[in-house]
Amino acid sequence: MMNATHDTTLRSWVESANEPETDFPIQNLPYGVFTVAAEEKATARVGVAIGNSILDVTAAVKSGLLPPSRAATACERPTLNRLMELGKGYQSALRSALSDLLARGSDAGRTAAAVRDSILVPTDRAVLHLPVAIGDYTDFYASIHHATHVGRMFRPDSPLLPNYKYVPIGYHGRASSIVESGVPVKRPRGQTRAADATVPTFGPSRMLDYESELGVFVGRGNHLGAPIRISDTEDHLFGFCLVNDWSARDIQTWEYQPLGPFLAKNFATTISSWVVTAEAAEPYRIPAAARPPGDPPPLDYLLSEENEKSGGLDAILEVHLSSARMRDERIPATLLSRAPFSLMYWTLAQMVTHHASNGCNLRTGDLMASGTVSGPSPDAMGCLLELTERGAKPITLPTGETRKFLEDGDEVVMRGYLRAESRPRIGFGECRGVILPADSA
Amino acid sequence: MMNATHDTTLRSWVESANEPETDFPIQNLPYGVFTVAAEEKATARVGVAIGNSILDVTAAVKSGLLPPSRAATACERPTLNRLMELGKGYQSALRSALSDLLARGSDAGRTAAAVRDSILVPTDRAVLHLPVAIGDYTDFYASIHHATHVGRMFRPDSPLLPNYKYVPIGYHGRASSIVESGVPVKRPRGQTRAADATVPTFGPSRMLDYESELGVFVGRGNHLGAPIRISDTEDHLFGFCLVNDWSARDIQTWEYQPLGPFLAKNFATTISSWVVTAEAAEPYRIPAAARPPGDPPPLDYLLSEENEKSGGLDAILEVHLSSARMRDERIPATLLSRAPFSLMYWTLAQMVTHHASNGCNLRTGDLMASGTVSGPSPDAMGCLLELTERGAKPITLPTGETRKFLEDGDEVVMRGYLRAESRPRIGFGECRGVILPADSA
Repeated sequence: MMNATHDTTLRSWVESANEPETDFPIQNLPYGVFTVAAEEKATARVGVAIGNSILDVTAAVKSGLLPPSRAATACERPTLNRLMELGKGYQSALRSALSDLLARGSDAGRTAAAVRDSILVPTDRAVLHLPVAIGDYTDFYASIHHATHVGRMFRPDSPLLPNYKYVPIGYHGRASSIVESGVPVKRPRGQTRAADATVPTFGPSRMLDYESELGVFVGRGNHLGAPIRISDTEDHLFGFCLVNDWSARDIQTWEYQPLGPFLAKNFATTISSWVVTAEAAEPYRIPAAARPPGDPPPLDYLLSEENEKSGGLDAILEVHLSSARMRDERIPATLLSRAPFSLMYWTLAQMVTHHASNGCNLRTGDLMASGTVSGPSPDAMGCLLELTERGAKPITLPTGETRKFLEDGDEVVMRGYLRAESRPRIGFGECRGVILPADSA
Repeated sequence: MMNATHDTTLRSWVESANEPETDFPIQNLPYGVFTVAAEEKATARVGVAIGNSILDVTAAVKSGLLPPSRAATACERPTLNRLMELGKGYQSALRSALSDLLARGSDAGRTAAAVRDSILVPTDRAVLHLPVAIGDYTDFYASIHHATHVGRMFRPDSPLLPNYKYVPIGYHGRASSIVESGVPVKRPRGQTRAADATVPTFGPSRMLDYESELGVFVGRGNHLGAPIRISDTEDHLFGFCLVNDWSARDIQTWEYQPLGPFLAKNFATTISSWVVTAEAAEPYRIPAAARPPGDPPPLDYLLSEENEKSGGLDAILEVHLSSARMRDERIPATLLSRAPFSLMYWTLAQMVTHHASNGCNLRTGDLMASGTVSGPSPDAMGCLLELTERGAKPITLPTGETRKFLEDGDEVVMRGYLRAESRPRIGFGECRGVILPADSA
């Protein structure tokens, strides 16, 4: 269902939105929550990224540039949740109005451009907040390349467990420790056991890692006991973000049997400040990844013609790393990986349907992450565990420093965008975090 | 720190609170959230169980019987969260005032008794709601007897994994599907694989189970990055409830590797409607269970003199089961187990400290459950998986019906109480749920 907001020829009167490398052309219009400079956090409200600026939706309503629709007034809130719980109709109407308002050449655009200072905030003057009040956070494991790389380290002969090709494996993560891009992450302490030891010790993690993932936010929820058919998943997906699922590998190795990762993950999870809507992402949908010959088809409840045809998303996720020394010496961050989301074994629709297949209720604002997005090749591995083969093959930074895992002062910046032939790409902005030293004992 | 509210000789002018078998003597005063009969849910407010009645705290404030303190006015809310986030000082003052108000022989008690109809609601005329807005839900695995019984089914020679005696094993559960006592639970559908099959099928679980657990609610939270020392845990514990961690064993077996239980658990978790405060529980504290000779001591961060001395809780958890036919024939529910919480390998303080030891932030209203509470003997096993040895030894009900796992129409009622010599016992009320048939395909 393409509409005018997907018009590839559309340009904005916000000139920075027309530059080829921007994450935020007028075809994107992602939502975030912001305050300006010294404003109190209580005034946080929804904004829309456009080039290097933010459109203050509430200011646009107050200026009479946007009708005070349910969706537009939902943007007065300090989270996206109110907007997310509205139906697609309301959301789509707001998107159309925003597109019209920001377009070059439209009547609304001319009126808006004339009062630009009252509705636009330069992004570098804004503070971006956690955009969503997240009820439950679920992390999947949907990249077969990641699962295979990691599984091979533990079980060289049978890297994939028997359930992998049937079950979109997932587990519950921690909602309380999800933070927005830019919040520093303190190295966690925890129990680890050295390979040659019988007894664990408690101290700072020495195998701190990132995981590059795509997140999806639930818009409308479902009732407890009422599964979501795969053909109905679209009604429930509001939009997408980047996720850094920080992981302490040494803590994970020692704690995870038999109930899964816990303290290895829940000390922090970083998400991008901008949420790209499902509607904006529509032109970037592609068929679900083809299963290799011999692989079983998904069970019926995970299968639909539409999912096969357009369940994939042509997203690219990048990871950039800089050490403290690199930043001191003004050396740009190193690109560590660039992974295609198009190769995921399970689609987002399959994850949603599987999650609710037992009647589990998803609520507006819930976050589901894809699991580490990795491709088959070394330049497409979305975490250091894979990239360095668990530390066996350290990577070398431009300064000559080497890394098996993250060191204090390292900064990880994830970026990502959706691409389609002959279309402007649309991006997520950054998902950024720097590692602070652990507490001393 | 005993105080007047722990006086064992205290009696209430609410006569049903003085009966020996009541869960709710004046020494208890647990909090819940209720409405009366046909009232709108929006009017839900905090009440206190006393005998077979509920004290409407808000009504007592409005009648001038309670001072409008911060804690008392927090009780106008439809959840306990506002009350829970106040410090112990406020909470303790409210408890004292409530105790005085409900006491026989006090001035306040005489005044209150004279207007009883305006402040007391018979429990059988009330609707009890989910008492707490739960942000994150964590489930532990702290009964070594449960872990051993279950582990033995899978690994007869080494039932306990090497981490068990060092790590209070836990994992994140689902907050959205936590329901209050009385809400029916629909049998989940999911992927399972028969023992002799290579390919899974999707359908109703055939190994539906309960797990009897004790829950603890977080009062004051901690900031992200700021662990909680074991000597400080008391500041963060608001109170306790019963938890039924419903589990689909066949779904669990197939899905849980490598990231832990997911759809096997998140279709529903039932909690008791009443929250027994940590303050009420104080006289029922006992030393932490002694570790068997040869077991390693807890690592330093999990060790404190106070925890050794009084980290345990002398709680008894019971599970009662009735089939639909038993209820038709008016046959009372069968007691399946009675398990002592005193034998848990890890204390609640250790679970809290471990949870936050990596800097993970706990928030007001978060729920931590203990994991299945089992003792060593067959009459103290807190789930059917253990009781029937995974279905190998079915139990027989008074009707002659047998059970390997739960059948449609079965109702599980958990009860629990704290006990201490020469003290009235204080209980949790019920944690009840009946199994509804699965959706048809």
